Amino acid sequence: MIKVGVIGSTGYAGQQLVWLLHRHPDVRISFLSSNSYVGSSFSKVYGNYSKNLEMLCINMEEAENRLDEIDILFIALPHGKSFNLVKKSLDLGVKVVDLGADFRLKDENAYKQWYNIDHEAVDLLSNAVYGLPEINRDIIKNSNLIANPGCYPTASILALSPLLKNNLIEKSSIIIDAKSGVSGAGRSLNVSTLYGECNESIKAYAISSHRHTPEIEQALSQVANEDIYLSFTPHLVPMNRGILATCYANLVNDISEEELHDLYSSFYENEHFVRIIKDLPETKWVKGSNICDISIRVDKRTKKVIVISTIDNLIKGAAGQAVQNMNIMFGIDENMGLDLLSMFP
Amino acid sequence: MIKVGVIGSTGYAGQQLVWLLHRHPDVRISFLSSNSYVGSSFSKVYGNYSKNLEMLCINMEEAENRLDEIDILFIALPHGKSFNLVKKSLDLGVKVVDLGADFRLKDENAYKQWYNIDHEAVDLLSNAVYGLPEINRDIIKNSNLIANPGCYPTASILALSPLLKNNLIEKSSIIIDAKSGVSGAGRSLNVSTLYGECNESIKAYAISSHRHTPEIEQALSQVANEDIYLSFTPHLVPMNRGILATCYANLVNDISEEELHDLYSSFYENEHFVRIIKDLPETKWVKGSNICDISIRVDKRTKKVIVISTIDNLIKGAAGQAVQNMNIMFGIDENMGLDLLSMFP
Amino acid sequence: MIKVGVIGSTGYAGQQLVWLLHRHPDVRISFLSSNSYVGSSFSKVYGNYSKNLEMLCINMEEAENRLDEIDILFIALPHGKSFNLVKKSLDLGVKVVDLGADFRLKDENAYKQWYNIDHEAVDLLSNAVYGLPEINRDIIKNSNLIANPGCYPTASILALSPLLKNNLIEKSSIIIDAKSGVSGAGRSLNVSTLYGECNESIKAYAISSHRHTPEIEQALSQVANEDIYLSFTPHLVPMNRGILATCYANLVNDISEEELHDLYSSFYENEHFVRIIKDLPETKWVKGSNICDISIRVDKRTKKVIVISTIDNLIKGAAGQAVQNMNIMFGIDENMGLDLLSMFP
Amino acid sequence: MIKVGVIGSTGYAGQQLVWLLHRHPDVRISFLSSNSYVGSSFSKVYGNYSKNLEMLCINMEEAENRLDEIDILFIALPHGKSFNLVKKSLDLGVKVVDLGADFRLKDENAYKQWYNIDHEAVDLLSNAVYGLPEINRDIIKNSNLIANPGCYPTASILALSPLLKNNLIEKSSIIIDAKSGVSGAGRSLNVSTLYGECNESIKAYAISSHRHTPEIEQALSQVANEDIYLSFTPHLVPMNRGILATCYANLVNDISEEELHDLYSSFYENEHFVRIIKDLPETKWVKGSNICDISIRVDKRTKKVIVISTIDNLIKGAAGQAVQNMNIMFGIDENMGLDLLSMFP
Repeated sequence: MIKVGVIGSTGYAGQQLVWLLHRHPDVRISFLSSNSYVGSSFSKVYGNYSKNLEMLCINMEEAENRLDEIDILFIALPHGKSFNLVKKSLDLGVKVVDLGADFRLKDENAYKQWYNIDHEAVDLLSNAVYGLPEINRDIIKNSNLIANPGCYPTASILALSPLLKNNLIEKSSIIIDAKSGVSGAGRSLNVSTLYGECNESIKAYAISSHRHTPEIEQALSQVANEDIYLSFTPHLVPMNRGILATCYANLVNDISEEELHDLYSSFYENEHFVRIIKDLPETKWVKGSNICDISIRVDKRTKKVIVISTIDNLIKGAAGQAVQNMNIMFGIDENMGLDLLSMFP
Repeated sequence: MIKVGVIGSTGYAGQQLVWLLHRHPDVRISFLSSNSYVGSSFSKVYGNYSKNLEMLCINMEEAENRLDEIDILFIALPHGKSFNLVKKSLDLGVKVVDLGADFRLKDENAYKQWYNIDHEAVDLLSNAVYGLPEINRDIIKNSNLIANPGCYPTASILALSPLLKNNLIEKSSIIIDAKSGVSGAGRSLNVSTLYGECNESIKAYAISSHRHTPEIEQALSQVANEDIYLSFTPHLVPMNRGILATCYANLVNDISEEELHDLYSSFYENEHFVRIIKDLPETKWVKGSNICDISIRVDKRTKKVIVISTIDNLIKGAAGQAVQNMNIMFGIDENMGLDLLSMFP
Repeated sequence: MIKVGVIGSTGYAGQQLVWLLHRHPDVRISFLSSNSYVGSSFSKVYGNYSKNLEMLCINMEEAENRLDEIDILFIALPHGKSFNLVKKSLDLGVKVVDLGADFRLKDENAYKQWYNIDHEAVDLLSNAVYGLPEINRDIIKNSNLIANPGCYPTASILALSPLLKNNLIEKSSIIIDAKSGVSGAGRSLNVSTLYGECNESIKAYAISSHRHTPEIEQALSQVANEDIYLSFTPHLVPMNRGILATCYANLVNDISEEELHDLYSSFYENEHFVRIIKDLPETKWVKGSNICDISIRVDKRTKKVIVISTIDNLIKGAAGQAVQNMNIMFGIDENMGLDLLSMFP
Repeated sequence: MIKVGVIGSTGYAGQQLVWLLHRHPDVRISFLSSNSYVGSSFSKVYGNYSKNLEMLCINMEEAENRLDEIDILFIALPHGKSFNLVKKSLDLGVKVVDLGADFRLKDENAYKQWYNIDHEAVDLLSNAVYGLPEINRDIIKNSNLIANPGCYPTASILALSPLLKNNLIEKSSIIIDAKSGVSGAGRSLNVSTLYGECNESIKAYAISSHRHTPEIEQALSQVANEDIYLSFTPHLVPMNRGILATCYANLVNDISEEELHDLYSSFYENEHFVRIIKDLPETKWVKGSNICDISIRVDKRTKKVIVISTIDNLIKGAAGQAVQNMNIMFGIDENMGLDLLSMFP
């Protein structure tokens, strides 16, 4: 059994992670830490666990003292909060999957520029592996520190990698127009995420300035083997879960939808969690699963390719991918505990 | 492996059943029948199954010809459509779980009165067992024909049985005010279930005339050992899933909330799928699970007891309970394939 | 022109009031006060007013200093916050409509019991008029202090008054099962009103203990001319607006739905904002209007009457009724500024 | 008083039009025609009109016979259904506003290509005026036949016209990523618009093939004075109303957000229904109004401009704009009957 601890277990990503770990056949949860609910039973915070997970939430200090009980630590905290904890864990030989943003950008200056704080564990940046298994599986296997990708980046990178890998598009023409359910904004108190404010409305936000932009660019630059700059616009949609990314780029050659479909199918043919489909993706078909659906369209009139991808932001976009990374790190079946299809409706 | 067939697999209850059967470790699906999608791949109808369940939907006639392949048949059809199919199946030694209403009422006259058609398999009525395991587990075990309870009845009967079993309330004072998500109305085309018609609105419907009324009364009469008549009002709520039943009755004696909580806890102490809780139930905590949450309140000022119960209408209220019944009929672990907690949010 | 001030203008009820006052042909808004947004343009808080209402929000102190500019003050504050303000306004000859709860209960002990604080303006309680025009129109006309009814009470009292006035039901048998949209919970920050917590779920809350209970009882006792105690259960429904109240009582005599429909129609025949309808009410048909729809059903099997009423909680249940009261107090056409039908969908 | 008739009054756009006409101070509705509800009271179809608009729906034939009663006919039918009706109306001197698509494209071949049927009133195409007042006000005034713009085109053309008029962008770089509420899909029966299918999900549809594409291109080509081809992707969002268009283009010169904001403000400075705002638009702030909110962002890193516009698809995107056109055609105040701000929440 893999013994795990979870820091930040009562946020939306954290509780989704607990849900997956709780049903994972090879995992035993050692402790759950929470900032807001120290001393509460987990089932008091999330009633779905009533009679099933009555473990009390501990605070960060106690969690640090119990690192020796676990094999792997999952951290689901806001950026800038986990530097010391990561160091301490690694020193003790505990593997880390950080669902936060602190170890995603390789360049400490980029980190400072986009996150407005200094990086306090620069020496670990080179060890950290960007945990998108479809791109980095081999190095994830031997890593002790995984920077779990953001939700928008997961959907965007999976959608665009085959095009860039195969030099099919103008590198400067990429636009990602992404739409997310409200759980992406987390559980912290904010007027803008009250029911009455989100329901029955859609908005764009953080245009050209969202922190997932450099993360997407870094990963796609790696795939393309040259620097990629792109335009990224996120939107907030009145639904609990799901991300749909609509990705646009100019094609450099004539190529048909059919050819692109085949190319994508080959690119991902061994991937359990990526489905290249002919119908247009809808978030409802991946909600609650670790799956990314991708479909490709060519606009012949304007010579553009449009790639649509969908994920569940809390699963493939956060907790599910974290478990997928753990599975790889521990050499067990990659889809263990992740064999979920979307429940409908 | 239990070999199963599903009739009406593409309705909302049907597809939920397929979802559960598909992941059930002891089940192999032999065929899926559909009225509207004959010849289509199941994954073409429900995109969540893409690359996972590509089986083609067959029509009823073909299904009838393939009854010899299976151990148990699940039927999810509107009432009045399955009389012959049930007979034929039983004749062939195939067990049947009917998710429809045809075998729930023991009295053929009551059936005619509430459903406006003649019952065409009256001789089977005495064999049919009302498949609410928490009440009828022992006779379910040895039955070949299970009338799977309706969604509202499941929530209502579980909420009220302990009170009636213990003679705690005035028998004529029961009022059930129930609220259901829209999936309860099924997938058939109807202006009233279009998005624009349901969203952002609530309504009551079928007041004093809903067909689940005699079903609830029959089951509670059995529990109380005398005839029960009650008032039942269903409502349609803008959400996909979930039923919340608010049940009112006059207490005959002084009894405290605490005593009632303990009494309920004892009544259901061996039940895996009923949770007696102190907090008030919310449908979100049972959505996607086979669980029924129940909480009890006493209004001292008016000497009334208010019992609140919640279920997922498509799982404990339909497909999950059908699988639970199958598990009992085949002598396997009752919660096999049903070990689901609600995923949040 | 009636010159008005609004205290608490940036809460959900407050901003709905501003919306109505802003388009009222006989009203000029003198000032808007806010606790949270002092110094902000109103359109910065609520973007719908962009280029239309750029007035800056002032604080309570400044509002008090400007009472001499206005004819009437609307107060939309939590209970217990407006005692002094009401006194000061009345002393200056400014009429007051209090949308809060402080002057609704006539009995200071009941106030203390249900609201857990002392009433600090007991001498004003006898002057205050409960502002439900359909019941108290005549005394509203000559009042300077209106206690604007709560949302649940408005729907409940209008639904039940004709039955009680005509002695048609057992007085102790009344049950009100009410369902409200989320805006009823206000705009204050609370985990329980975050989008992810409310969406796709329904719950009951404050069973037997909601503060609207004594308010409903007081008004119905006045109508019935004897003390009424009833059971009231509110529910939270995932929609922005609307209340549906399902009211149950035991009939004392045989009376048909048709007779009751006629009786209700007569009772409300001169009322512009009450519609007695044959179809079952749905909140979507009154959303955005000052209208209360009511329909009556008789359950012959159990000799119960079920009355369903719907209102928009922010309009007839708050701001619209406040304007209706103002119109009456100033002797202008009662539906001035309130000639709104629900916009669909 | 302007006497009006409405064809297709019971569709979603039709009933919104009736709502606006019913409260328009200068309008008298002569007749309402419907395909599905002939002989029904309008209030029976839409309960919000109970006791307020009990007029019976007539059929198309009767409507044709009563054209002499009216000054203007509004047609809200699917494309291809109104050719003869338009001819007949114009022959009788009745002005026409067609909310359908038949007279929007000037080129009959383009019509055939995109709508797959022959145009049967080609001779009227040159008379028809594309009814976007902000672009074509002067010719609307003297026209008898208005082709009322589509919903997506309204939002898109208003967003992009200032850029094209001023030659600020690369003409071939335009991408419009638009998101619409479900009412845009109309009220006809379709599995894909059932509540359970739309709720809690987002999808793209009709990529590169939506019929609004040539309409947007035609209007923008007129503004730019050269042929424009662009990529247009619509999405379906789980909300009743609202369109948000996110428009991307490559800037040809360095220009700041501030300069663009001023340029847009000047471009629309006399427009009552267009608001150039600094905050990012949200559909909730225009829902229920005839207003289009527009905000401009520059992505300096990629030299792109992103223009966000929001409208209510049923008002500025259909019925409101139709009334606006009527007001212009009859020389009355353009915002008569359209003085609506969004009601929140």
